[in-house]
Amino acid sequence: MALRTLNAKNAAALDKELMSDGAFSVDQLMELAGLAVSQVVYQLQPLQKGRRVLVACGPGNNGGDGLVAARHLWHYGYQPTMYYPKQSKNELYQRLSKQLKDLDIPFTEDFDAALKQTDHVVDSIFGFSFSGEVREPFPKVIEALRDTKVPVLAVDAPSSWNIEDGPPDSGPGKGFMPEALISLTAPKPLVQWFKGRHFIGGRFLSKAVAEKYDLDVPPYQGIDQIVEVGTEGQRL
Amino acid sequence: MALRTLNAKNAAALDKELMSDGAFSVDQLMELAGLAVSQVVYQLQPLQKGRRVLVACGPGNNGGDGLVAARHLWHYGYQPTMYYPKQSKNELYQRLSKQLKDLDIPFTEDFDAALKQTDHVVDSIFGFSFSGEVREPFPKVIEALRDTKVPVLAVDAPSSWNIEDGPPDSGPGKGFMPEALISLTAPKPLVQWFKGRHFIGGRFLSKAVAEKYDLDVPPYQGIDQIVEVGTEGQRL
Repeated sequence: MALRTLNAKNAAALDKELMSDGAFSVDQLMELAGLAVSQVVYQLQPLQKGRRVLVACGPGNNGGDGLVAARHLWHYGYQPTMYYPKQSKNELYQRLSKQLKDLDIPFTEDFDAALKQTDHVVDSIFGFSFSGEVREPFPKVIEALRDTKVPVLAVDAPSSWNIEDGPPDSGPGKGFMPEALISLTAPKPLVQWFKGRHFIGGRFLSKAVAEKYDLDVPPYQGIDQIVEVGTEGQRL
Repeated sequence: MALRTLNAKNAAALDKELMSDGAFSVDQLMELAGLAVSQVVYQLQPLQKGRRVLVACGPGNNGGDGLVAARHLWHYGYQPTMYYPKQSKNELYQRLSKQLKDLDIPFTEDFDAALKQTDHVVDSIFGFSFSGEVREPFPKVIEALRDTKVPVLAVDAPSSWNIEDGPPDSGPGKGFMPEALISLTAPKPLVQWFKGRHFIGGRFLSKAVAEKYDLDVPPYQGIDQIVEVGTEGQRL
């Protein structure tokens, strides 16, 4: 039995509901999402195999999840480097960036150089609200992620993939297949085309909300904030 | 070598600094603090030994940590019950309470009855800003915690203890010695008198801030948000 998926429209509605009726703040949800991302990196990239993690952040909430993840990774003992070329004036993202700068985590503008000097990449460029064209400066970044041999963990969606229709037929993301994906709250329809390891994170979904959106509460274990699921959605 | 402690005045200053210069929001810090509390409960009270956890919340931030912890405990499979007699109009605490109500977590006004039907207690009544007298309705609650055989985890301080001088010589908290204590960010001077298991939580301290406040960054392992330390502060 596959975990049920959440399309782009419903993902946006669910996010909105969590922050209105659900009484969550975006700070809270982003903290838990970024924490989940950091736990997947810890599972995929043992510290003794290399500590360098390049975190590529887009301008929106997906990028914010990357900012939070980087802070937790630093505390675990990783050496994150941030690529965050389109920094929003949004107060929350500015605060999350400041928290990283206070840990002396470097921000780079040269993605290609950084990619040559990392052990792992987090792709938190675009998430469930992405559609249409990949804008500058991200086409070259996505091409580099497509071509690199360094393992990539995508947050919610491989950046440039269509949320419903999956991998693009053309453009920089054609042929981009990250090693791993973490779906936040629930998988999006694009997971049907995804061939890597698949995790779910975001352990805050109530049964009532899950029912309303026709979703499964993922089979988290113990105190884990993440669970690895197969292509069919079972826990591995 | 004992972990260095943080007195009440400096604990307040550090909290303020984290939320100004440090750019953290109270939502973020409380989420991480409550998560840490929930991880200690998970370690002390295995699910198969009993799932019922009574969370006693005071009117301030210590109570807020308990509200967050209860939500995580619910997601782990526990059955929390809330005792929260002095509910603040503070918007954050109201939101945290709403998040619990959406999970159908019960709120009780009868502490004694609830104490007879629980497997574990979280004491998040008073924290590092407590001083002076225990106000109503808490004297009887603290007496009950003192006298119960149910294990109690205190958050930051056994409620009614003086932050610098430890256990009170008189009043309801005389003789109150919880089974366990989680110190958030750093131990307070009262830990010198504490005889139970001692954990540290709050994995967000930068080296710069730790140095400024003359603190140790606790020896967290892996992705743990908590670490158990001995009476002398070493990791156990």
